[in-house]
Amino acid sequence: MAQAHGDRLSAVDASFLAQERANSHMHIGAVLILEGPPPTYEDFLNHIRSRLHLVPRYRQKLAVPPLETGRPIWIDDASFNLEYHVRHTALPSPGSQEQLRALAARIHSQRLDRAKPLWELWLVQGLEDGRFALISKTHHALVDGISGVDLMTVMFDLSPVPQAAPHEGEPWTAQPEPNPVQLAARGVKGLARLPLELANGALAAATHPGASLDQVKEALEGIGEVAWAGLNPAPETPLNVPIGPHRRLSFVRNDLDDFKLVKNTLGGTVNDVVLTVVAGGLRTWLRSRGVRTEGLELRALVPVSVRTKDDKGQLGNRIVVMRGPLPVYVEDPVARLRVVRHAMDGLKESKQAVGAAAISGLEALAPPTILAQASRLQFSTRLFNLLVTNVPGPQFPIYILGRELLDTYPVAFLPENQSLAVAIMSYNGGMDFGLLGDYDNLPDIEDLGQALKDALAELVQAAGGKPRGRRKKASAV
Amino acid sequence: MAQAHGDRLSAVDASFLAQERANSHMHIGAVLILEGPPPTYEDFLNHIRSRLHLVPRYRQKLAVPPLETGRPIWIDDASFNLEYHVRHTALPSPGSQEQLRALAARIHSQRLDRAKPLWELWLVQGLEDGRFALISKTHHALVDGISGVDLMTVMFDLSPVPQAAPHEGEPWTAQPEPNPVQLAARGVKGLARLPLELANGALAAATHPGASLDQVKEALEGIGEVAWAGLNPAPETPLNVPIGPHRRLSFVRNDLDDFKLVKNTLGGTVNDVVLTVVAGGLRTWLRSRGVRTEGLELRALVPVSVRTKDDKGQLGNRIVVMRGPLPVYVEDPVARLRVVRHAMDGLKESKQAVGAAAISGLEALAPPTILAQASRLQFSTRLFNLLVTNVPGPQFPIYILGRELLDTYPVAFLPENQSLAVAIMSYNGGMDFGLLGDYDNLPDIEDLGQALKDALAELVQAAGGKPRGRRKKASAV
Repeated sequence: MAQAHGDRLSAVDASFLAQERANSHMHIGAVLILEGPPPTYEDFLNHIRSRLHLVPRYRQKLAVPPLETGRPIWIDDASFNLEYHVRHTALPSPGSQEQLRALAARIHSQRLDRAKPLWELWLVQGLEDGRFALISKTHHALVDGISGVDLMTVMFDLSPVPQAAPHEGEPWTAQPEPNPVQLAARGVKGLARLPLELANGALAAATHPGASLDQVKEALEGIGEVAWAGLNPAPETPLNVPIGPHRRLSFVRNDLDDFKLVKNTLGGTVNDVVLTVVAGGLRTWLRSRGVRTEGLELRALVPVSVRTKDDKGQLGNRIVVMRGPLPVYVEDPVARLRVVRHAMDGLKESKQAVGAAAISGLEALAPPTILAQASRLQFSTRLFNLLVTNVPGPQFPIYILGRELLDTYPVAFLPENQSLAVAIMSYNGGMDFGLLGDYDNLPDIEDLGQALKDALAELVQAAGGKPRGRRKKASAV
Repeated sequence: MAQAHGDRLSAVDASFLAQERANSHMHIGAVLILEGPPPTYEDFLNHIRSRLHLVPRYRQKLAVPPLETGRPIWIDDASFNLEYHVRHTALPSPGSQEQLRALAARIHSQRLDRAKPLWELWLVQGLEDGRFALISKTHHALVDGISGVDLMTVMFDLSPVPQAAPHEGEPWTAQPEPNPVQLAARGVKGLARLPLELANGALAAATHPGASLDQVKEALEGIGEVAWAGLNPAPETPLNVPIGPHRRLSFVRNDLDDFKLVKNTLGGTVNDVVLTVVAGGLRTWLRSRGVRTEGLELRALVPVSVRTKDDKGQLGNRIVVMRGPLPVYVEDPVARLRVVRHAMDGLKESKQAVGAAAISGLEALAPPTILAQASRLQFSTRLFNLLVTNVPGPQFPIYILGRELLDTYPVAFLPENQSLAVAIMSYNGGMDFGLLGDYDNLPDIEDLGQALKDALAELVQAAGGKPRGRRKKASAV
């Protein structure tokens, strides 16, 4: 869809701005590891500059109409400065993954400046083995509304030989900023035909901005099911306590084939295996904290993208909320997978089936915006203990300036009173976990990462395989 | 003075918290350049840990009593985590000063987290020529109240051989956090004997927390003079416009002997020469912006530390505010110095003389807390165009873990509607300028830095000298 000067934020996008708190940031991103040698800052800037016209939203900022009812609109940022958004930094020696995680966590601990286009992209030199990294950070309100064409998509090539982008080199000129009267008029325009205003504080499904009313209704029915489930509140855990603004990250690097082996041998979907691994890891971690796990089942919020026809007959992404069961009370990994499958089968008979069906084919999907799915939801710790989001990426190598992308660790966000979010992204045979934790509540996030790794290894072994970690150009974790 | 658990913030320190805005941060710091090789993060952490007991305030956080009248108190941070405050990072290659400035500017663009002790110290690897840097960032409310013993002081040694600090190695235990009732009681305690409550929004002099009432009165008379001057408001300039949260830095490295040559040949004090250089640089910069300088005199706020006996007969620092004339209308550098001297002589006949007298002996003073002087003031653009602060440092080399400190660039702060602050620090024969600018308003801050350099060179030439830049282990700027 177009990303035009003067677009008004959808109700959902506006809600991401409204929901943001000092300690609960609404930006998401990823840590990408690429083969070296790192490009120079100038080359990288020029590359981004050459693709920026494909994603106009990245040169737009928020303008707030002077009326309470007026939701913000996107306007061109006349003083747009690419050097502000694209930043160059380096790791201290030896350039370990631990140092990279510390850097990325610091970057994600700081809110984006709302007076500027809502994104940053950091070029990171000095990673060990001659590699380099990119750390992205983009506000929900930006990535959500553009539905499929974001900077992360357009900056990559499908081949090692950099390609010229269509219309590359055409000069960009900012549209003039609206004056206060124009801004006021723009703020109220369209309010009458607003398809769905979300009740404040209620659990809400968000829909594709272009979705038809039918689709909205269908999504709401699915959500109703989840809301019902919420009448049994999620259990209290050390995860669900007030959080601060600071973050920690842990990365777990896995091979997608390990998940497929488990699925093919023991049954279920890739997503069932993911939930089983997360439940197993949380079990170990909770017990290391002295928390009793007898009878304890945590509840994950799992945003799911389903492909539907929109009213123009085009394929579009639509998001439904799924409740992901995390039976941490089950010690045996095979039994734990069985419980997850059973719970998921039960959910399939409800409206949540839409999501479950979509999940089974997850690896075939390629929604281009990392984690955009997660951005269309509101959260409540009464309903969910943590966010677990599984984002399928391309299953072939992609390149930037001729350098191959090796690993992608997605970074989600923490709603208030949630100390952990698990984001997973598959890419080119890998299945990488990015764990985002509150800095003070999760000093032991590395233990949790290791516990997830162990939980997968147990399942692989139970399936008769040998846990291999990730092969091919593996970057040690 | 002691820095005890349970100390209540002075009215002034509390006002720094109250004054802080999203775009106007109240932290200060410095960028320090040291000879290599850089220490490891572990060695550096251990070094800081070994000195931390000398500055208890650095392990204390704010606690806010539950009463409107209750000013915050300092309490031990039981979850103090040194790795949070001391951070390790690196510059991308080639490790230029420009890259160092970009890093330091980003660090200073972010507010400190008020839930933790109010400081950060960054160890920066990868500076060119095998050097490394330290970037400090400390909240005014912390540095101001401790009057002389801060981390920057205690972490340095007077000799290349690291010394054991007194009482090193004694274990630290946090005092328990006060409960709400204790906190409420602590909040009102001492309110009755409060020596001076500062009128909100009024220009205020701040005094040494331990100052006697006589000293307070004397300082207020000096301030009264400045307030009178304020009836003629400072001129409007491109510097005095709304600012954003982001910053730029420019460094100018000078030799103290150049300032002394000018002073000895052409008359005046070192501070007169500083103001003449700043005026000359601003003249060039304003004209490059197309601003007419005919008849234009800007006004600098110059905080001055004077040594006085306190009521116990000990020497203490006391701060007075001086109005620094910046006659940008004068093209000829010698004539400009004359105008500055004349204006300063006029000020000497007023109560501001105290400050002027102190300035002439500035280089002999060694107040240990960088920029702490500047922190005791409130600001108004009606009265001042910018902050110019001149902090004398030691005139002999100091060391950290055996590495010599080479250069010190102080970083001041920007009050609302002030886009530039100039901080100067003398150290071991150097006289380094740190220019802090608003990111969007001062994209040409490097031009301003160069203009300051040129303005000094003109004066040195007029004094019959040859501008030499800085000698001895010079790091190129």
